[in-house]
Amino acid sequence: MKKSDVVKEILAGRRGSANPVGQAEAPANIALCKYWGKRNEELNLPITSSLSLTLDHVGARTEISQCSSGDQIFLSGERLDSDHPFANRLSRYLDLFRQGDEGYCVKTESSVPVAAGLASSASGFAATVKALDALYGWKLGSRELSILARLGSGSACRSLYSGFVEWHVGEREDGMDSYAEPLELQWPEIRLGWILVSTAHKPVGSREAMRRTRESSPLYQSWPAQVARDLAEIKAALSLRDFTRLGETVEANALAMHATMMAAQPAILYWLPDTVAVLHQVADARRQGVSVYATMDAGPNVKILYQARDQDRVVERFPQISFLCG
Amino acid sequence: MKKSDVVKEILAGRRGSANPVGQAEAPANIALCKYWGKRNEELNLPITSSLSLTLDHVGARTEISQCSSGDQIFLSGERLDSDHPFANRLSRYLDLFRQGDEGYCVKTESSVPVAAGLASSASGFAATVKALDALYGWKLGSRELSILARLGSGSACRSLYSGFVEWHVGEREDGMDSYAEPLELQWPEIRLGWILVSTAHKPVGSREAMRRTRESSPLYQSWPAQVARDLAEIKAALSLRDFTRLGETVEANALAMHATMMAAQPAILYWLPDTVAVLHQVADARRQGVSVYATMDAGPNVKILYQARDQDRVVERFPQISFLCG
Repeated sequence: MKKSDVVKEILAGRRGSANPVGQAEAPANIALCKYWGKRNEELNLPITSSLSLTLDHVGARTEISQCSSGDQIFLSGERLDSDHPFANRLSRYLDLFRQGDEGYCVKTESSVPVAAGLASSASGFAATVKALDALYGWKLGSRELSILARLGSGSACRSLYSGFVEWHVGEREDGMDSYAEPLELQWPEIRLGWILVSTAHKPVGSREAMRRTRESSPLYQSWPAQVARDLAEIKAALSLRDFTRLGETVEANALAMHATMMAAQPAILYWLPDTVAVLHQVADARRQGVSVYATMDAGPNVKILYQARDQDRVVERFPQISFLCG
Repeated sequence: MKKSDVVKEILAGRRGSANPVGQAEAPANIALCKYWGKRNEELNLPITSSLSLTLDHVGARTEISQCSSGDQIFLSGERLDSDHPFANRLSRYLDLFRQGDEGYCVKTESSVPVAAGLASSASGFAATVKALDALYGWKLGSRELSILARLGSGSACRSLYSGFVEWHVGEREDGMDSYAEPLELQWPEIRLGWILVSTAHKPVGSREAMRRTRESSPLYQSWPAQVARDLAEIKAALSLRDFTRLGETVEANALAMHATMMAAQPAILYWLPDTVAVLHQVADARRQGVSVYATMDAGPNVKILYQARDQDRVVERFPQISFLCG
């Protein structure tokens, strides 16, 4: 099944009143239980479910209008060449929605560095699909938007909601049951901070890294079982407001994801020396009574999970922290 | 089954002529395919086979004599208190060989730092068991010495031989088929160098780290299959003198071992920032045409595998290297 078939099915009968411009925002999200590995690369269908926390104050803002002379893609005010990786990827995605040979003028502002493992593509594609919905007046529901966003970037399907969000793995071949939904709980005291190690582009993109891990890492065989266990633990910890249980599982899940990559051939080592330095700082902080945990995505940067009441102690220990949430 | 039963069985009928002093040396060894996880903690029986390269010029030299007033343990000329971890562990091992209430005077010199992941216990216990054999005049064969050395420290069973050595996993409950043997091949152009990152004692000992990994790391489920594959690859690469295949597998095996630990709970992260820096240097060197590979044991230090013909280029890129072999 192709992406275009999914789009056709979702948009069937959705002929709203088009507007001259569609505009939308979408937040970034950080997975607490990671998405790592696709069972279908065309549709970005995952091997496991995953669970994220939305970062309400960082993300992307996108404005889309039609234009006659091919696509014009602007990132943070700068016009990108059509062979720029971001522009190219976005144009291929927009191909799914063209009704004739029209082009799109897309202006995106992102408050997170692109391709540095900070969910830039998640918020980017979620904002794009919402902007398209506004442009064409489809009035799609969140579930449909989530599915369409997934076709751009898997984790984008989680960027349609606030709070804690679960992306259901689904089992259908067309992926119509693989979408994200918010959990019905709030825990506003949870904080996520960002320790910047490097904003350099990743040496290996997530898509290629997932593929290589799945195909060549013997340890990846155990990953689905790890996720099943961690996802249940994280959901239990969230319901019980058990921060220690939450943090321990979140950190273990991220380390295990990186561990599966290190055992790929060739190995994928996103970590830099400072990544390890921060991981040891986090463990030291815990030994000294500050309840902080680390998580990492496909890149060298470290995100820190803690509770609002520990804010001062966390800032004291990690003066380089940026606040993502809270 | 207890260690003392194994010793009794091996020494049955071995009453040679005792000497006043037994003296022996044993080399260190570095596993190319790692030993990680015990199926029997009492007898140090492994979950998988493993394969090592002996470092002929580094190791331990031990001299043992009997003395009347308890054990006296000297490490590099310094008398250790009986509650020193090294002295205590050695005394518990010597208990297996006492014939009455005699003590032993043991003088050990080690050319490798103790407990820093450089196989100090392997050469130490191998030298001890050979020194006991000399003291008591047992004239045991290598296989019996290998089994006795294993009772002290698993990897010590590989330090009885030169060259490439395989420790057979065995299947018997008494471990009589779990011993090491040399491979019948030479490859004298292989070099192993050591990049010192830290000589600090390990935060978690190997025994505890193996146990925790086996019991709590979901990724450990895949480790035996990884070793089976890597061991076959390494043996094939050695027979074919295929250095690239050898190096790629050796590095992948070490990374996978560390990966299983990172996914333990609590995580075991032996790596320090400089460990990661060296791993990236090794990968950079390869990208620039220098055929070098990394391996690591239960600690932060990195060993570098290369061929004699690349010695100058390796030294130029890794000026901090120490030579272990070749």
